Amino acid sequence: MIVAMQEKATEEQIDAVIDAMVEAGVGVHRTTGAMQTILAGVGPTASLDLSKFENLAGVLHVHRISSPYKLAGRGFRPEGTVVEFRNGVTVGGRQVAVMAGPCSIENRAQIFETAKRVKESGGSFLRGGAYKPRSSPYAFQGMGIPGLELMREAAEAHGLLVVSEVMEISQIEPMLPFVDLFQVGARNMQNFNLLRELGLIRKPVLLKRGMAATIEELLLSSEYILSGGNYDVILCERGIRTYETATRNTMDISAIPVVKKLSHLPIVGDPSHGTGRRDMVAPLARAAVAAGADGIIVEVHPNADKAASDAAQTLYPDQFDKLMSELRLIATAVGRTI
Amino acid sequence: MIVAMQEKATEEQIDAVIDAMVEAGVGVHRTTGAMQTILAGVGPTASLDLSKFENLAGVLHVHRISSPYKLAGRGFRPEGTVVEFRNGVTVGGRQVAVMAGPCSIENRAQIFETAKRVKESGGSFLRGGAYKPRSSPYAFQGMGIPGLELMREAAEAHGLLVVSEVMEISQIEPMLPFVDLFQVGARNMQNFNLLRELGLIRKPVLLKRGMAATIEELLLSSEYILSGGNYDVILCERGIRTYETATRNTMDISAIPVVKKLSHLPIVGDPSHGTGRRDMVAPLARAAVAAGADGIIVEVHPNADKAASDAAQTLYPDQFDKLMSELRLIATAVGRTI
Amino acid sequence: MIVAMQEKATEEQIDAVIDAMVEAGVGVHRTTGAMQTILAGVGPTASLDLSKFENLAGVLHVHRISSPYKLAGRGFRPEGTVVEFRNGVTVGGRQVAVMAGPCSIENRAQIFETAKRVKESGGSFLRGGAYKPRSSPYAFQGMGIPGLELMREAAEAHGLLVVSEVMEISQIEPMLPFVDLFQVGARNMQNFNLLRELGLIRKPVLLKRGMAATIEELLLSSEYILSGGNYDVILCERGIRTYETATRNTMDISAIPVVKKLSHLPIVGDPSHGTGRRDMVAPLARAAVAAGADGIIVEVHPNADKAASDAAQTLYPDQFDKLMSELRLIATAVGRTI
Amino acid sequence: MIVAMQEKATEEQIDAVIDAMVEAGVGVHRTTGAMQTILAGVGPTASLDLSKFENLAGVLHVHRISSPYKLAGRGFRPEGTVVEFRNGVTVGGRQVAVMAGPCSIENRAQIFETAKRVKESGGSFLRGGAYKPRSSPYAFQGMGIPGLELMREAAEAHGLLVVSEVMEISQIEPMLPFVDLFQVGARNMQNFNLLRELGLIRKPVLLKRGMAATIEELLLSSEYILSGGNYDVILCERGIRTYETATRNTMDISAIPVVKKLSHLPIVGDPSHGTGRRDMVAPLARAAVAAGADGIIVEVHPNADKAASDAAQTLYPDQFDKLMSELRLIATAVGRTI
Repeated sequence: MIVAMQEKATEEQIDAVIDAMVEAGVGVHRTTGAMQTILAGVGPTASLDLSKFENLAGVLHVHRISSPYKLAGRGFRPEGTVVEFRNGVTVGGRQVAVMAGPCSIENRAQIFETAKRVKESGGSFLRGGAYKPRSSPYAFQGMGIPGLELMREAAEAHGLLVVSEVMEISQIEPMLPFVDLFQVGARNMQNFNLLRELGLIRKPVLLKRGMAATIEELLLSSEYILSGGNYDVILCERGIRTYETATRNTMDISAIPVVKKLSHLPIVGDPSHGTGRRDMVAPLARAAVAAGADGIIVEVHPNADKAASDAAQTLYPDQFDKLMSELRLIATAVGRTI
Repeated sequence: MIVAMQEKATEEQIDAVIDAMVEAGVGVHRTTGAMQTILAGVGPTASLDLSKFENLAGVLHVHRISSPYKLAGRGFRPEGTVVEFRNGVTVGGRQVAVMAGPCSIENRAQIFETAKRVKESGGSFLRGGAYKPRSSPYAFQGMGIPGLELMREAAEAHGLLVVSEVMEISQIEPMLPFVDLFQVGARNMQNFNLLRELGLIRKPVLLKRGMAATIEELLLSSEYILSGGNYDVILCERGIRTYETATRNTMDISAIPVVKKLSHLPIVGDPSHGTGRRDMVAPLARAAVAAGADGIIVEVHPNADKAASDAAQTLYPDQFDKLMSELRLIATAVGRTI
Repeated sequence: MIVAMQEKATEEQIDAVIDAMVEAGVGVHRTTGAMQTILAGVGPTASLDLSKFENLAGVLHVHRISSPYKLAGRGFRPEGTVVEFRNGVTVGGRQVAVMAGPCSIENRAQIFETAKRVKESGGSFLRGGAYKPRSSPYAFQGMGIPGLELMREAAEAHGLLVVSEVMEISQIEPMLPFVDLFQVGARNMQNFNLLRELGLIRKPVLLKRGMAATIEELLLSSEYILSGGNYDVILCERGIRTYETATRNTMDISAIPVVKKLSHLPIVGDPSHGTGRRDMVAPLARAAVAAGADGIIVEVHPNADKAASDAAQTLYPDQFDKLMSELRLIATAVGRTI
Repeated sequence: MIVAMQEKATEEQIDAVIDAMVEAGVGVHRTTGAMQTILAGVGPTASLDLSKFENLAGVLHVHRISSPYKLAGRGFRPEGTVVEFRNGVTVGGRQVAVMAGPCSIENRAQIFETAKRVKESGGSFLRGGAYKPRSSPYAFQGMGIPGLELMREAAEAHGLLVVSEVMEISQIEPMLPFVDLFQVGARNMQNFNLLRELGLIRKPVLLKRGMAATIEELLLSSEYILSGGNYDVILCERGIRTYETATRNTMDISAIPVVKKLSHLPIVGDPSHGTGRRDMVAPLARAAVAAGADGIIVEVHPNADKAASDAAQTLYPDQFDKLMSELRLIATAVGRTI
């Protein structure tokens, strides 16, 4: 950590800051310039609340130098994490993973038809929501466990893995038999109790970036899961909230290379939520893969316009199939396969 | 709802949209202009997912006309909601409510000293966290129930009410005997399962605006509580995330008059989180009251610089006392009392 | 400046960075920690492009410690700047300045009627646009010099000062006889050629914050004017662009105390553009004064609903008069007068 | 346009709104629902200031239905605009255009070496700044016309076209002999006087999106140029300002397909300013082309770390060469060539 003193800071003020740093267990190195004194602190600062120092008399700024996450940092596993699933599918390796399916599981015919089409086009995960976080209490809230049973059956029938969202600690246990990958939605990215519980199980977790979360906060949230001993975390960029209203969110494609640099965790892109518009899904899916994403997750529904939720951003199976052909070419261009 | 068709939309496309609207239970009125056709839909659109219509062929835009919340809307209680507490204190009436205390409860001496000073300066609620949502798993996570026991005792000793944050459904029950007002933090504003449970109890809830939530989303979240039959909801503006980094958040003072216009629910301002800087707390507290807030909630600690969390934005009791004198003058200027 | 090296940085990399800093005229102090080396640079870094150092091998972060502006900084004039006008009116002193008038000057009757009402209610500046920056080329673009002639005449008749927007270097000269205060609009906050020219004249300038400008950028822009020798600069907070759409912009009230701390320049609030909604103008004007603003600038029009531009955010004279009564009380509460 | 009345609006209020619409030249169609009345206005609303209607008594919302731009809309030229340059190079056709060069022209050796390397790698435009908009008045401000003379000479020597930024109306005339494409920077996107003048010349213009501009505002700004009769406008996405600080800006890749849908104008991506970090330039350049961009503009300098400006985001020629190989593969994947 660095504490930059104000130009007019007195010796007493500087000494008081040094004392406070030492008391917090930090070693202090002092640089006295013509204009300004700078105090560099070395030691266990990752768990320190730096805001403590910001109001001490004579202090101008306090900067954190070392990153506040440990297990999520690239340095922890320089070679990168590859999450392996029971059928040999991997996320984070050479393969670009494709996860597709409806926003909500609605009925048997819908989920079976989707599974069939997803598999035929080359996807490896079936996605589908059984518990739906809806901003309005009056909107469709999901089928629950009966929906997961249908999805599991459909996935097995077509050799797909299952990814579905968990919203609440009490849902983890009942969901365990049905899912291969637990999804934590954007609204729960900082539901720290839920994350802590997911750190204690031994199934992979797909952690979506919050609507207004920085990349650093996303990595800190993953740290809650990793620090419980569950190292199989896959991150997901799904669009952030900005002032632009032409798209539902602004998909931050640059988050993909930034995460690859700062962390060893794989990252996938979600162009469906990232844009909120069906006609933007394919261009942004291509962009995500071109930028180095380890996979994509997209919404597909056999009768997209009649979907119970997210109709506007859901692809028809034929559109998904065409997208897959394009992605195969892009993947090759960046030295990967689908 | 309004569906604006593209200029080149065909009669078949228009008919298909009308059919889809009728099928959704909406009555349709058509306006045929020289350039463009417009379809106005009347009926039960509040619970309708309008995105369904956005991708129909020939559609340009879909607009929601009626607000998607019902119980939170001003129309539901034009005279405004006044939340009454057991000792006669009210929020939403003529009185400006003041809630103050440390970010975290740390020990007996700290919380008793704070309670004494808050009461002496004229506050009516003691705030303090027992469960702390921290972005890093390595930061202090709160004292839990023992902390609440201390806070309750301190509050009783000084005739204050208790407000404290609930992070998780399983905490509601154990917290019940200790708190007068359940606080839902910004990170949980869209934890819909938690909100639904809070709708089933009969204690007031202080619902903080999410870091990137629109005012409409805040009102929709309150609807989860209201629709359970718990009408005692107080909203809280605590700063939103913007590109500006001079303050921790950007406190959206205009949210106060906007909420007063759209809803009957009271709203208080939190200048501590709104700014994240001790020297900005007083100006923004004054601004909130001047703009019509029904109260403020601020962080106060007898030894602010040594606070276990949020030190940078916590007032010393003397600073709080000075702020209270200023607020009394501002309250008078807007026809209220403290 | 501070350069934090990566944990794995080699001695050669560290030496190369030190060399680059010395070459740039910066003295270097080195701190070698167990994990990480930190280089503190002291010297003329204000004019240095720090991005130079960010890509050097082994560098983790580069931080600027001293502020990049000089003349605008509080340290340059700790007592604060008070801008004095020819009739004795001041901005930045004990008095809260009130500037009011229509968005656009439309005709003789309109501007004379407005001047009369502004004066009667206690304003000291008449505002009005002769050159209008409009996002659409098809919208009304202003009356130009004939409009300024009318405004000058109306202002003289009622003992008011004139403030009007300059959009272009070539307009400065012709506007000089008519205005007491040149306004630079939000869209031109970084029109550096225009700012430089305004630094060479000897009339006060009202510099509005850009729609997406940080407070630091606002101060840097003021530096262009100050460095030309024109020290009479008044800043203006007029709302920033955020994701919230309930108001046209989000008025950043906290910018007022932040500017008062960082700079000696006066700052006024513009609640008309800050909110874009007539019914939000009064609450935000009160908030601005409560937070310590040196004045406000508001849109007033005798027939507000028929105004040629900005009708939605323009007050009727009676509403303005009522606002002035409220502001007088708030001003007293913060130790000032109107 | 659509005016949605409040639920409790009276017949008198509705009549007053209808009168105001008719007075503005708009034909009105009324829909009376059980809850709410809706007024659809048809006619010349593009040039109308809709805010006029927002405050009329009983009005809930006013929506614009038709887009406020005309010449920039897709409907004006459904087949898309292809900008042709004197040497046969096109932007907007099958070819992906590559523009590369230093942020600032510094000296003869630098610009000649850059031109050679850009050409060898397959670029077709040489970019370089002679006039630099710098946030600090103390930073390097560019070489002016002598710099443009050098750049023209270097470009001719290597068969490249010249693109350079114009900051001010008075620079247009002197720049004319030296540039093939006038660049308008992000800070000038709403410098309407400059845009209007550029509409009167007959050379192509590259219009960059403002840091906080919506896509609609970008198109409205292009309308200022188009309405002067200059149809050769190329748009540029260069990153927008968001709360995320890991990158200098957030490059809005989705703006590319959105612009392609709404407008006939070509659009290129600028990953140098879009990210501000050298190691993020290649991934985002690939993403832009994968998403359908008509070209890219990137910063390249033979001695990137010593560049006079933007060093942190400038590629070395070898990095640019490697990027070009990747882009050729991506271009093929989306059916285009470089």
